[in-house]
Amino acid sequence: MIQYYQSSMNLAYKEDKTVVTEVDKKINHYLIEKVKETYQSHAVLGEEESFRQNSDYIWVCDPIDGTGMYVNHIPVFVFSLALVYQGEPIVGVVYNPNEDKMYTAIKDEGSYCNDIRLFVNNKKLRDLGYKTNIELFNNDIIDEVSLIHDLKPISKISSIGSVARSGVAIAEGHFSCDVFPGTEHGNCDIAAVSLIVQEAGGKVTDLYGEEQRYDRDIKGAIISNGISHDQIVKLVKKYILK
Amino acid sequence: MIQYYQSSMNLAYKEDKTVVTEVDKKINHYLIEKVKETYQSHAVLGEEESFRQNSDYIWVCDPIDGTGMYVNHIPVFVFSLALVYQGEPIVGVVYNPNEDKMYTAIKDEGSYCNDIRLFVNNKKLRDLGYKTNIELFNNDIIDEVSLIHDLKPISKISSIGSVARSGVAIAEGHFSCDVFPGTEHGNCDIAAVSLIVQEAGGKVTDLYGEEQRYDRDIKGAIISNGISHDQIVKLVKKYILK
Repeated sequence: MIQYYQSSMNLAYKEDKTVVTEVDKKINHYLIEKVKETYQSHAVLGEEESFRQNSDYIWVCDPIDGTGMYVNHIPVFVFSLALVYQGEPIVGVVYNPNEDKMYTAIKDEGSYCNDIRLFVNNKKLRDLGYKTNIELFNNDIIDEVSLIHDLKPISKISSIGSVARSGVAIAEGHFSCDVFPGTEHGNCDIAAVSLIVQEAGGKVTDLYGEEQRYDRDIKGAIISNGISHDQIVKLVKKYILK
Repeated sequence: MIQYYQSSMNLAYKEDKTVVTEVDKKINHYLIEKVKETYQSHAVLGEEESFRQNSDYIWVCDPIDGTGMYVNHIPVFVFSLALVYQGEPIVGVVYNPNEDKMYTAIKDEGSYCNDIRLFVNNKKLRDLGYKTNIELFNNDIIDEVSLIHDLKPISKISSIGSVARSGVAIAEGHFSCDVFPGTEHGNCDIAAVSLIVQEAGGKVTDLYGEEQRYDRDIKGAIISNGISHDQIVKLVKKYILK
Protein backbone atom coordinates (compact mmCIF):
# COMPACT_ATOMS: atom_id res chain seq x y z
CA MET A 1 0.00 0.00 0.00
CA ILE A 2 2.69 2.44 1.06
CA GLN A 3 5.01 1.50 -1.80
CA TYR A 4 2.39 2.54 -4.36
CA TYR A 5 1.31 5.52 -2.27
CA GLN A 6 4.83 6.92 -2.33
CA SER A 7 5.53 6.08 -5.97
CA SER A 8 2.25 7.69 -7.07
CA MET A 9 3.10 11.07 -5.57
CA ASN A 10 3.65 12.65 -8.96
CA LEU A 11 0.77 11.06 -10.80
CA ALA A 12 -2.22 12.92 -12.15
CA TYR A 13 -5.67 12.20 -10.73
CA LYS A 14 -6.80 9.68 -13.36
CA GLU A 15 -3.55 7.77 -13.03
CA ASP A 16 -4.02 7.91 -9.26
CA LYS A 17 -7.39 6.25 -9.56
CA THR A 18 -5.89 3.52 -11.71
CA VAL A 19 -3.14 3.02 -9.16
CA VAL A 20 -5.55 2.73 -6.24
CA THR A 21 -7.63 0.17 -8.11
CA GLU A 22 -4.50 -1.80 -8.94
CA VAL A 23 -3.28 -1.74 -5.34
CA ASP A 24 -6.72 -2.69 -4.03
CA LYS A 25 -6.83 -5.64 -6.40
CA LYS A 26 -3.29 -6.78 -5.61
CA ILE A 27 -3.83 -6.76 -1.85
CA ASN A 28 -7.19 -8.48 -2.25
CA HIS A 29 -5.71 -11.16 -4.50
CA TYR A 30 -2.74 -11.69 -2.18
CA LEU A 31 -5.17 -12.29 0.69
CA ILE A 32 -7.07 -14.91 -1.31
CA GLU A 33 -3.85 -16.74 -2.13
CA LYS A 34 -2.86 -16.75 1.54
CA VAL A 35 -6.26 -18.00 2.73
CA LYS A 36 -6.21 -20.77 0.09
CA GLU A 37 -2.79 -21.87 1.35
CA THR A 38 -3.67 -21.94 5.03
CA TYR A 39 -7.43 -22.40 5.48
CA GLN A 40 -8.57 -24.56 2.57
CA SER A 41 -12.26 -24.53 3.51
CA HIS A 42 -12.58 -20.79 4.22
CA ALA A 43 -14.13 -18.18 1.93
CA VAL A 44 -12.96 -14.63 1.15
CA LEU A 45 -15.25 -11.65 0.63
CA GLY A 46 -13.24 -8.66 -0.57
CA GLU A 47 -14.23 -5.30 -2.01
CA GLU A 48 -12.39 -6.15 -5.23
CA GLU A 49 -12.49 -9.94 -5.45
CA SER A 50 -14.15 -12.82 -3.61
CA PHE A 51 -13.46 -16.55 -3.40
CA ARG A 52 -15.95 -19.37 -2.64
CA GLN A 53 -19.47 -18.64 -1.39
CA ASN A 54 -20.65 -21.11 1.18
CA SER A 55 -18.41 -21.49 4.17
CA ASP A 56 -19.06 -20.80 7.84
CA TYR A 57 -15.73 -18.97 7.88
CA ILE A 58 -15.44 -15.88 5.68
CA TRP A 59 -12.49 -13.48 5.57
CA VAL A 60 -14.02 -10.06 4.99
CA CYS A 61 -11.54 -7.50 3.69
CA ASP A 62 -11.29 -3.88 2.63
CA PRO A 63 -7.78 -3.63 1.15
CA ILE A 64 -7.71 0.18 1.45
CA ASP A 65 -10.35 1.93 3.53
CA GLY A 66 -10.10 5.63 2.75
CA THR A 67 -9.26 5.47 -0.97
CA GLY A 68 -10.41 9.08 -1.41
CA MET A 69 -7.66 10.16 0.98
CA TYR A 70 -5.19 7.68 -0.56
CA VAL A 71 -5.56 9.11 -4.08
CA ASN A 72 -5.26 12.61 -2.67
CA HIS A 73 -2.02 11.83 -0.85
CA ILE A 74 -3.45 12.45 2.61
CA PRO A 75 -2.20 9.82 5.08
CA VAL A 76 -5.57 8.77 6.51
CA PHE A 77 -6.28 5.25 5.21
CA VAL A 78 -6.01 1.73 6.62
CA PHE A 79 -6.16 -1.96 5.75
CA SER A 80 -9.09 -3.86 7.28
CA LEU A 81 -9.62 -7.62 7.66
CA ALA A 82 -12.01 -9.72 9.74
CA LEU A 83 -12.65 -13.41 10.11
CA VAL A 84 -16.43 -13.76 10.24
CA TYR A 85 -17.96 -16.99 11.58
CA GLN A 86 -21.63 -17.49 10.73
CA GLY A 87 -22.07 -13.77 10.29
CA GLU A 88 -20.22 -12.71 13.43
CA PRO A 89 -16.67 -11.27 13.45
CA ILE A 90 -14.38 -13.38 15.68
CA VAL A 91 -11.03 -11.90 14.61
CA GLY A 92 -10.48 -8.28 13.56
CA VAL A 93 -7.35 -6.58 12.23
CA VAL A 94 -6.91 -2.98 11.12
CA TYR A 95 -3.45 -1.83 10.07
CA ASN A 96 -2.64 1.86 9.82
CA PRO A 97 0.56 1.98 7.77
CA ASN A 98 0.89 5.75 8.08
CA GLU A 99 1.45 5.54 11.82
CA ASP A 100 2.61 1.91 11.95
CA LYS A 101 -0.23 0.85 14.22
CA MET A 102 -1.64 -2.66 14.21
CA TYR A 103 -5.07 -2.94 15.82
CA THR A 104 -6.23 -6.47 16.66
CA ALA A 105 -9.08 -8.15 18.45
CA ILE A 106 -10.15 -11.73 19.12
CA LYS A 107 -13.67 -12.36 20.36
CA ASP A 108 -13.83 -12.30 24.18
CA GLU A 109 -10.11 -11.53 24.44
CA GLY A 110 -10.05 -7.71 24.21
CA SER A 111 -8.63 -5.24 21.70
CA TYR A 112 -5.04 -4.17 21.27
CA CYS A 113 -2.96 -1.63 19.39
CA ASN A 114 0.65 -2.78 18.99
CA ASP A 115 0.04 -5.02 22.04
CA ILE A 116 -1.37 -2.25 24.26
CA ARG A 117 -4.87 -3.00 25.53
CA LEU A 118 -7.53 -0.59 24.23
CA PHE A 119 -10.54 0.91 25.98
CA VAL A 120 -13.19 3.29 24.66
CA ASN A 121 -13.63 6.64 26.39
CA ASN A 122 -16.56 7.41 28.68
CA LYS A 123 -17.86 10.64 27.13
CA LYS A 124 -21.54 11.42 26.92
CA LEU A 125 -23.02 12.95 23.77
CA ARG A 126 -22.96 16.46 25.17
CA ASP A 127 -19.24 16.30 25.85
CA LEU A 128 -18.25 14.99 22.45
CA GLY A 129 -16.53 18.14 21.23
CA TYR A 130 -14.66 17.38 18.04
CA LYS A 131 -14.90 13.65 18.59
CA THR A 132 -17.84 12.81 16.35
CA ASN A 133 -17.06 11.61 12.87
CA ILE A 134 -19.74 11.65 10.21
CA GLU A 135 -18.86 10.00 6.93
CA LEU A 136 -20.10 12.21 4.13
CA PHE A 137 -21.22 10.16 1.19
CA ASN A 138 -22.29 11.98 -1.92
CA ASN A 139 -25.64 10.29 -2.15
CA ASP A 140 -26.50 11.11 1.40
CA ILE A 141 -25.23 14.62 1.58
CA ILE A 142 -28.59 16.33 1.94
CA ASP A 143 -29.84 14.15 4.76
CA GLU A 144 -26.56 14.35 6.54
CA VAL A 145 -26.39 18.06 6.24
CA SER A 146 -29.58 18.22 8.27
CA LEU A 147 -27.98 15.86 10.79
CA ILE A 148 -24.92 18.06 10.98
CA HIS A 149 -27.12 21.05 11.44
CA ASP A 150 -29.03 19.47 14.26
CA LEU A 151 -25.98 18.12 16.02
CA LYS A 152 -24.15 21.41 15.64
CA PRO A 153 -25.31 22.88 18.95
CA ILE A 154 -24.10 19.84 20.86
CA SER A 155 -21.18 18.62 18.79
CA LYS A 156 -18.65 19.70 16.24
CA ILE A 157 -18.69 17.40 13.27
CA SER A 158 -15.75 16.25 11.24
CA SER A 159 -15.23 13.58 8.64
CA ILE A 160 -11.82 12.05 8.20
CA GLY A 161 -12.53 10.00 5.07
CA SER A 162 -11.98 6.50 6.45
CA VAL A 163 -14.58 4.86 8.67
CA ALA A 164 -12.17 2.10 9.72
CA ARG A 165 -9.60 4.70 10.79
CA SER A 166 -12.32 6.49 12.70
CA GLY A 167 -13.46 3.16 14.19
CA VAL A 168 -10.09 2.33 15.70
CA ALA A 169 -9.96 5.90 17.04
CA ILE A 170 -13.17 5.06 18.91
CA ALA A 171 -11.64 1.82 20.21
CA GLU A 172 -8.62 3.67 21.59
CA GLY A 173 -10.76 6.42 23.15
CA HIS A 174 -9.81 9.27 20.81
CA PHE A 175 -13.23 9.53 19.12
CA SER A 176 -16.60 8.83 20.70
CA CYS A 177 -18.85 7.87 17.80
CA ASP A 178 -19.19 7.52 14.04
CA VAL A 179 -22.25 7.35 11.82
CA PHE A 180 -21.61 5.40 8.62
CA PRO A 181 -24.35 5.29 5.98
CA GLY A 182 -22.67 2.78 3.62
CA THR A 183 -24.59 -0.32 2.57
CA GLU A 184 -23.22 -2.15 -0.48
CA HIS A 185 -19.95 -3.86 0.53
CA GLY A 186 -20.26 -1.79 3.72
CA ASN A 187 -19.56 -4.95 5.72
CA CYS A 188 -16.00 -4.91 4.31
CA ASP A 189 -15.45 -1.50 5.95
CA ILE A 190 -17.03 -2.32 9.30
CA ALA A 191 -16.49 -6.03 10.07
CA ALA A 192 -13.06 -5.70 11.72
CA VAL A 193 -13.86 -2.42 13.46
CA SER A 194 -17.08 -3.90 14.79
CA LEU A 195 -15.14 -6.47 16.82
CA ILE A 196 -12.26 -4.15 17.74
CA VAL A 197 -14.66 -1.51 19.12
CA GLN A 198 -16.85 -4.01 20.99
CA GLU A 199 -13.84 -5.74 22.54
CA ALA A 200 -12.67 -2.29 23.70
CA GLY A 201 -15.99 -1.81 25.51
CA GLY A 202 -17.93 0.05 22.79
CA LYS A 203 -21.02 -0.75 20.77
CA VAL A 204 -21.68 -1.25 17.05
CA THR A 205 -25.10 -1.62 15.43
CA ASP A 206 -26.78 -0.85 12.11
CA LEU A 207 -28.34 2.59 11.57
CA TYR A 208 -31.57 1.32 13.23
CA GLY A 209 -29.78 0.29 16.41
CA GLU A 210 -29.98 -3.44 15.60
CA GLU A 211 -27.23 -6.04 15.50
CA GLN A 212 -26.41 -7.32 12.01
CA ARG A 213 -24.42 -9.96 10.13
CA TYR A 214 -21.11 -8.98 8.54
CA ASP A 215 -20.93 -11.63 5.81
CA ARG A 216 -23.22 -9.60 3.51
CA ASP A 217 -24.21 -6.00 2.73
CA ILE A 218 -25.15 -4.05 5.87
CA LYS A 219 -27.57 -1.28 6.79
CA GLY A 220 -24.88 1.27 7.61
CA ALA A 221 -23.36 1.41 11.05
CA ILE A 222 -23.38 3.39 14.26
CA ILE A 223 -20.11 2.90 16.08
CA SER A 224 -19.79 4.34 19.57
CA ASN A 225 -18.25 4.16 23.00
CA GLY A 226 -21.59 2.63 24.06
CA ILE A 227 -22.61 5.36 26.46
CA SER A 228 -24.61 7.53 24.09
CA HIS A 229 -25.41 4.83 21.57
CA ASP A 230 -29.20 4.88 22.02
CA GLN A 231 -29.28 8.65 21.82
CA ILE A 232 -27.33 8.57 18.53
CA VAL A 233 -29.68 5.91 17.17
CA LYS A 234 -32.60 8.25 17.88
CA LEU A 235 -30.89 11.18 16.16
CA VAL A 236 -30.06 9.06 13.12
CA LYS A 237 -33.64 7.77 12.92
CA LYS A 238 -34.91 11.33 13.07
CA TYR A 239 -32.50 12.91 10.58
CA ILE A 240 -31.03 10.28 8.28
CA LEU A 241 -33.71 7.63 8.06
CA LYS A 242 -36.72 9.97 8.14
CA MET B 1 4.96 19.32 18.00
CA ILE B 2 5.38 15.59 17.46
CA GLN B 3 6.80 15.02 20.93
CA TYR B 4 3.61 16.37 22.53
CA TYR B 5 1.42 14.73 19.91
CA GLN B 6 2.78 11.32 20.80
CA SER B 7 2.85 11.86 24.55
CA SER B 8 -0.76 13.08 24.52
CA MET B 9 -2.11 9.91 22.94
CA ASN B 10 -3.76 8.78 26.16
CA LEU B 11 -5.11 12.11 27.29
CA ALA B 12 -8.77 13.00 27.53
CA TYR B 13 -10.15 15.73 25.33
CA LYS B 14 -9.94 18.61 27.80
CA GLU B 15 -6.36 17.71 28.61
CA ASP B 16 -5.72 17.51 24.86
CA LYS B 17 -6.90 21.06 24.40
CA THR B 18 -4.61 22.22 27.17
CA VAL B 19 -1.72 20.39 25.54
CA VAL B 20 -2.34 21.91 22.13
CA THR B 21 -2.50 25.40 23.63
CA GLU B 22 0.75 24.75 25.50
CA VAL B 23 2.50 23.45 22.39
CA ASP B 24 1.21 26.36 20.30
CA LYS B 25 2.53 28.81 22.85
CA LYS B 26 5.89 27.11 23.21
CA ILE B 27 6.54 27.03 19.47
CA ASN B 28 5.38 30.62 19.12
CA HIS B 29 7.59 31.77 21.98
CA TYR B 30 10.60 29.85 20.65
CA LEU B 31 10.17 31.63 17.31
CA ILE B 32 10.13 35.04 18.99
CA GLU B 33 13.34 34.23 20.87
CA LYS B 34 15.03 33.14 17.62
CA VAL B 35 13.93 36.23 15.71
CA LYS B 36 15.14 38.50 18.55
CA GLU B 37 18.55 36.79 18.41
CA THR B 38 19.02 37.01 14.66
CA TYR B 39 16.94 39.87 13.25
CA GLN B 40 16.87 42.54 15.96
CA SER B 41 14.63 44.95 14.04
CA HIS B 42 12.02 42.43 12.85
CA ALA B 43 8.55 41.88 14.32
CA VAL B 44 6.68 38.63 14.99
CA LEU B 45 2.94 38.11 14.52
CA GLY B 46 1.90 34.73 15.88
CA GLU B 47 -1.46 33.18 16.61
CA GLU B 48 -0.51 32.89 20.28
CA GLU B 49 1.98 35.70 20.89
CA SER B 50 3.33 38.69 19.01
CA PHE B 51 6.42 40.86 19.40
CA ARG B 52 6.91 44.49 18.31
CA GLN B 53 4.39 46.27 16.08
CA ASN B 54 6.01 48.56 13.57
CA SER B 55 8.60 46.94 11.38
CA ASP B 56 8.68 46.48 7.63
CA TYR B 57 9.67 42.86 8.28
CA ILE B 58 7.12 40.71 10.12
CA TRP B 59 7.43 36.97 10.77
CA VAL B 60 3.88 35.62 10.53
CA CYS B 61 3.41 32.24 12.16
CA ASP B 62 0.79 29.59 12.81
CA PRO B 63 2.58 27.19 15.16
CA ILE B 64 0.08 24.35 14.47
CA ASP B 65 -2.33 24.68 11.56
CA GLY B 66 -4.92 21.93 11.96
CA THR B 67 -5.27 21.90 15.75
CA GLY B 68 -8.64 20.14 15.45
CA MET B 69 -6.87 17.20 13.81
CA TYR B 70 -3.95 17.47 16.24
CA VAL B 71 -6.14 17.11 19.34
CA ASN B 72 -7.96 14.22 17.68
CA HIS B 73 -4.74 12.33 16.92
CA ILE B 74 -5.19 12.47 13.16
CA PRO B 75 -1.86 13.23 11.44
CA VAL B 76 -3.00 16.14 9.28
CA PHE B 77 -1.42 19.29 10.71
CA VAL B 78 1.56 21.49 9.83
CA PHE B 79 3.77 24.34 11.04
CA SER B 80 3.53 27.53 8.98
CA LEU B 81 5.85 30.55 8.90
CA ALA B 82 6.27 33.46 6.50
CA LEU B 83 8.50 36.51 6.37
CA VAL B 84 6.24 39.35 5.25
CA TYR B 85 7.82 42.55 3.91
CA GLN B 86 5.46 45.56 3.78
CA GLY B 87 2.47 43.21 3.66
CA GLU B 88 3.85 40.84 1.05
CA PRO B 89 5.25 37.37 1.87
CA ILE B 90 8.83 37.04 0.59
CA VAL B 91 9.78 33.80 2.35
CA GLY B 92 7.36 30.94 3.11
CA VAL B 93 7.93 27.72 5.04
CA VAL B 94 5.45 24.96 5.82
CA TYR B 95 6.69 21.89 7.64
CA ASN B 96 4.62 18.70 7.70
CA PRO B 97 6.13 16.64 10.51
CA ASN B 98 3.84 13.68 9.88
CA GLU B 99 5.40 13.03 6.50
CA ASP B 100 8.71 14.81 7.12
CA LYS B 101 8.14 17.25 4.27
CA MET B 102 9.61 20.74 4.28
CA TYR B 103 7.95 23.14 1.85
CA THR B 104 9.83 26.36 1.11
CA ALA B 105 9.55 29.33 -1.19
CA ILE B 106 11.50 32.55 -1.71
CA LYS B 107 9.91 35.27 -3.80
CA ASP B 108 10.83 34.92 -7.50
CA GLU B 109 12.85 31.77 -6.81
CA GLY B 110 10.20 29.01 -7.01
CA SER B 111 8.76 26.55 -4.50
CA TYR B 112 10.32 23.37 -3.22
CA CYS B 113 9.45 20.33 -1.14
CA ASN B 114 12.55 18.73 0.36
CA ASP B 115 14.52 20.39 -2.47
CA ILE B 116 12.28 19.14 -5.28
CA ARG B 117 10.79 21.95 -7.37
CA LEU B 118 6.98 22.18 -7.14
CA PHE B 119 4.42 22.99 -9.80
CA VAL B 120 0.64 23.25 -9.54
CA ASN B 121 -1.48 20.97 -11.71
CA ASN B 122 -3.37 22.16 -14.79
CA LYS B 123 -6.89 20.93 -14.03
CA LYS B 124 -9.97 22.94 -14.91
CA LEU B 125 -12.87 23.21 -12.48
CA ARG B 126 -14.88 20.51 -14.18
CA ASP B 127 -12.05 17.99 -13.79
CA LEU B 128 -11.43 18.65 -10.13
CA GLY B 129 -12.80 15.38 -8.81
CA TYR B 130 -11.82 14.97 -5.17
CA LYS B 131 -9.27 17.74 -5.38
CA THR B 132 -11.28 20.59 -3.94
CA ASN B 133 -10.90 21.32 -0.27
CA ILE B 134 -13.45 23.42 1.54
CA GLU B 135 -12.64 24.40 5.08
CA LEU B 136 -15.74 24.00 7.19
CA PHE B 137 -15.89 26.60 9.90
CA ASN B 138 -18.67 26.41 12.43
CA ASN B 139 -19.83 29.96 11.96
CA ASP B 140 -20.02 29.57 8.25
CA ILE B 141 -21.55 26.16 8.00
CA ILE B 142 -24.87 27.23 6.53
CA ASP B 143 -23.43 29.33 3.76
CA GLU B 144 -20.89 26.72 2.94
CA VAL B 145 -23.42 23.96 2.87
CA SER B 146 -25.11 25.82 0.03
CA LEU B 147 -21.73 26.10 -1.67
CA ILE B 148 -21.15 22.39 -1.25
CA HIS B 149 -24.58 21.75 -2.62
CA ASP B 150 -23.97 23.85 -5.68
CA LEU B 151 -20.51 22.51 -6.37
CA LYS B 152 -21.67 18.93 -5.86
CA PRO B 153 -22.59 18.31 -9.50
CA ILE B 154 -19.16 19.42 -10.68
CA SER B 155 -16.91 18.53 -7.81
CA LYS B 156 -16.64 16.26 -4.82
CA ILE B 157 -15.89 18.26 -1.73
CA SER B 158 -13.68 17.28 1.12
CA SER B 159 -12.20 19.12 4.04
CA ILE B 160 -8.98 17.91 5.57
CA GLY B 161 -8.92 20.20 8.59
CA SER B 162 -5.76 22.20 7.82
CA VAL B 163 -5.77 24.91 5.17
CA ALA B 164 -1.97 25.12 5.14
CA ARG B 165 -1.73 21.35 4.53
CA SER B 166 -4.27 21.72 1.76
CA GLY B 167 -2.33 24.71 0.38
CA VAL B 168 0.92 22.83 -0.03
CA ALA B 169 -1.07 20.02 -1.67
CA ILE B 170 -2.13 22.62 -4.24
CA ALA B 171 1.47 23.74 -4.70
CA GLU B 172 2.60 20.19 -5.41
CA GLY B 173 -0.30 19.49 -7.79
CA HIS B 174 -2.27 17.07 -5.61
CA PHE B 175 -5.21 19.43 -4.97
CA SER B 176 -6.56 22.09 -7.32
CA CYS B 177 -8.20 24.65 -5.05
CA ASP B 178 -9.22 25.56 -1.52
CA VAL B 179 -11.76 28.05 -0.22
CA PHE B 180 -10.86 29.38 3.22
CA PRO B 181 -13.34 31.66 4.99
CA GLY B 182 -11.15 32.56 8.01
CA THR B 183 -10.58 36.20 8.82
CA GLU B 184 -9.23 36.93 12.31
CA HIS B 185 -5.61 35.78 12.46
CA GLY B 186 -6.36 34.15 9.09
CA ASN B 187 -3.17 35.70 7.72
CA CYS B 188 -1.20 33.38 10.04
CA ASP B 189 -2.71 30.38 8.24
CA ILE B 190 -2.30 31.68 4.71
CA ALA B 191 0.83 33.88 4.53
CA ALA B 192 3.36 31.08 3.86
CA VAL B 193 1.04 29.08 1.62
CA SER B 194 0.26 32.20 -0.37
CA LEU B 195 3.89 32.49 -1.49
CA ILE B 196 4.48 28.73 -1.84
CA VAL B 197 1.44 28.33 -4.11
CA GLN B 198 2.20 31.41 -6.20
CA GLU B 199 5.84 30.41 -6.67
CA ALA B 200 4.57 27.01 -7.85
CA GLY B 201 2.51 28.74 -10.53
CA GLY B 202 -0.82 29.04 -8.70
CA LYS B 203 -2.90 31.98 -7.53
CA VAL B 204 -4.02 33.23 -4.09
CA THR B 205 -6.50 36.04 -3.45
CA ASP B 206 -9.07 37.01 -0.83
CA LEU B 207 -12.64 35.68 -1.14
CA TYR B 208 -13.46 38.62 -3.44
CA GLY B 209 -10.70 37.77 -5.89
CA GLU B 210 -8.48 40.66 -4.76
CA GLU B 211 -4.87 40.65 -3.61
CA GLN B 212 -4.40 41.40 0.08
CA ARG B 213 -1.76 42.13 2.72
CA TYR B 214 -0.64 39.33 5.05
CA ASP B 215 0.54 41.42 8.00
CA ARG B 216 -3.01 41.80 9.34
CA ASP B 217 -6.39 40.00 9.40
CA ILE B 218 -7.48 38.88 5.94
CA LYS B 219 -10.76 38.48 4.09
CA GLY B 220 -10.51 34.71 3.75
CA ALA B 221 -8.63 33.16 0.87
CA ILE B 222 -9.12 31.39 -2.42
CA ILE B 223 -6.09 29.27 -3.21
CA SER B 224 -5.91 27.62 -6.61
CA ASN B 225 -3.81 26.31 -9.45
CA GLY B 226 -4.73 29.58 -11.20
CA ILE B 227 -6.63 28.06 -14.08
CA SER B 228 -10.13 28.15 -12.61
CA HIS B 229 -9.49 30.92 -10.12
CA ASP B 230 -11.93 33.43 -11.60
CA GLN B 231 -14.65 30.80 -11.84
CA ILE B 232 -14.19 29.90 -8.16
CA VAL B 233 -14.28 33.59 -7.20
CA LYS B 234 -17.66 33.85 -8.95
CA LEU B 235 -19.02 30.78 -7.15
CA VAL B 236 -17.83 32.08 -3.80
CA LYS B 237 -19.38 35.50 -4.45
CA LYS B 238 -22.65 33.80 -5.33
CA TYR B 239 -22.80 31.30 -2.46
CA ILE B 240 -20.64 32.45 0.43
CA LEU B 241 -20.67 36.22 0.19
CA LYS B 242 -24.27 36.61 -0.98
